[in-house]
Amino acid sequence: MVILNEAEIRNTVSLTGEVIHQVGEAFQSDNSCFHCQPPVQQMELEPLNGLMCVKSFYTSEKSHFVVKMAGNYRRHQGESSEIHGMMAMYDSSSGQLSAILADNGYLTQIRTAAASGYAIDQLAPKQIDIAVIVGSGTQAKMQLTGLLLVRQPREIRCLGRNTERLARYAAWALDTHGVSISCFTEEVHAVTSADLIITATNSDVPVLHKNTVLACRQFSDLLIIAMGADSKGKRELETSLVLSADRWVCDDINQSFTLGELKEITSEDLDEVFVPVELADIAKAPQPGLTICDLTGVAKLDLAIAEYCLSRSDGNH
Amino acid sequence: MVILNEAEIRNTVSLTGEVIHQVGEAFQSDNSCFHCQPPVQQMELEPLNGLMCVKSFYTSEKSHFVVKMAGNYRRHQGESSEIHGMMAMYDSSSGQLSAILADNGYLTQIRTAAASGYAIDQLAPKQIDIAVIVGSGTQAKMQLTGLLLVRQPREIRCLGRNTERLARYAAWALDTHGVSISCFTEEVHAVTSADLIITATNSDVPVLHKNTVLACRQFSDLLIIAMGADSKGKRELETSLVLSADRWVCDDINQSFTLGELKEITSEDLDEVFVPVELADIAKAPQPGLTICDLTGVAKLDLAIAEYCLSRSDGNH
Repeated sequence: MVILNEAEIRNTVSLTGEVIHQVGEAFQSDNSCFHCQPPVQQMELEPLNGLMCVKSFYTSEKSHFVVKMAGNYRRHQGESSEIHGMMAMYDSSSGQLSAILADNGYLTQIRTAAASGYAIDQLAPKQIDIAVIVGSGTQAKMQLTGLLLVRQPREIRCLGRNTERLARYAAWALDTHGVSISCFTEEVHAVTSADLIITATNSDVPVLHKNTVLACRQFSDLLIIAMGADSKGKRELETSLVLSADRWVCDDINQSFTLGELKEITSEDLDEVFVPVELADIAKAPQPGLTICDLTGVAKLDLAIAEYCLSRSDGNH
Repeated sequence: MVILNEAEIRNTVSLTGEVIHQVGEAFQSDNSCFHCQPPVQQMELEPLNGLMCVKSFYTSEKSHFVVKMAGNYRRHQGESSEIHGMMAMYDSSSGQLSAILADNGYLTQIRTAAASGYAIDQLAPKQIDIAVIVGSGTQAKMQLTGLLLVRQPREIRCLGRNTERLARYAAWALDTHGVSISCFTEEVHAVTSADLIITATNSDVPVLHKNTVLACRQFSDLLIIAMGADSKGKRELETSLVLSADRWVCDDINQSFTLGELKEITSEDLDEVFVPVELADIAKAPQPGLTICDLTGVAKLDLAIAEYCLSRSDGNH
């Protein structure tokens, strides 16, 4: 049995174009063979002020199946979140435990940012003028890394509540990627003329609102990637903004309704505006108008990143 | 972080009176403190001809919480099942991964048999004349071990379909426990005058039927422990037998309805016959008539056995 700890995993996998490609392949994988993705198991843990999610996926296309645990906690009412967890990998043919990736949530962070990178590459035009990232935590950093692997926006902005954290984010971006970030604490200033907005928060109230977003986009096209909401309590988009989308794309329609940004939406509401489509089912193409892409995090990506980690680690030994 | 493999775990924990006591304490634990038991996550894995179950439990009473994986497979249409899996233990205060019990399903088998032992001790009279075990696999063996830790029946019978497997079971019982087992392939012969019947099968069709069981029990009291059904596809008791119970006890009422022997029962049916009660809520007492105890396997017992294993292992180092 292979056991890898967080340091070994960080040495093996980082967020690269190759990882985005792997995630894209997992999205486009064959659904005709036997596969099983049970509903996400979630534990709302008050004492840890956070959520433990268990996501599992089996496909006879792969040599392993995975049970992935990731907990995201904000203890002591802390501003910054801590992420913990591991992945258990089982042999698809025998059912035996074959690897433990004690990643403390790292691989989930990577595959989440890679999924956004893939979605942007599928849905955004080749040239992005202004990109906005909402949030300034670890995932907001990874989202920027993912973005820069697929597009080179002329201007990048960050929207957050805390100016100190925004300044740290901008310093990190300059240091790591050599890009200058303009920092904003007001939605209206941040989103003016944006082509792309990525929301990467743990918010339980909307961080983007219809009137502001629609007024600021005027007549240009806009792509919103909403990746923060992945449970009953979390949401990032105002309901009226959701219902203003010209196109709704998501990683998993069921999860969008149970865990993502369609939680507040009835199917009658939906019938009048859009039919949700999954990333797996669309051709690579930007579209005019407002496209919203809701990413809740799917277990088949956990399997993809785990398999990728394991195969690269095999090569290292 | 502690990592224990199956051999170390088997050296640390076996089915004893102390384990039954631990399991009983877990059943009776305080529900007023914060606790979280999400719905069981199940994967029906056709290629492995079996089921992977993920059961998780948090209580602020314990220093760890657990995500338990156990898969039970019958590959190649095999008679005997293989069990695989592990337990991930996280620190209740920090959320950090603190131990991996790579038990390959062993601790689940132990806690399952211990739960039956506890239920028998709560629900059966002090003296049992005739006890019947239905099934001859690994769990049927463990059920016998559990039974003998709490009662000494005058006669023990085993009911199965395969005479060779029955003979091996009887040989094992004689060798391990020094008890003689009478073997039966016909339900009617096995259950005549029984005081206790334990069903320990993976069956998807009833192995006990109303007419046979009620005719054979005549005017005496009977306790049935049904522990095999733990998923949508499995059942051991005929619906009419379920509805003949004078008392219905279970480890978890919701799980009885979704995974256990109440799957086929509507709440209207129930209203007319019995109100299900949980083991945690009853006083230690046999009752006249037919008592059925449906054990689906609860996550708080997984946590109890994992904590017990970890504490004993600490002592060993």
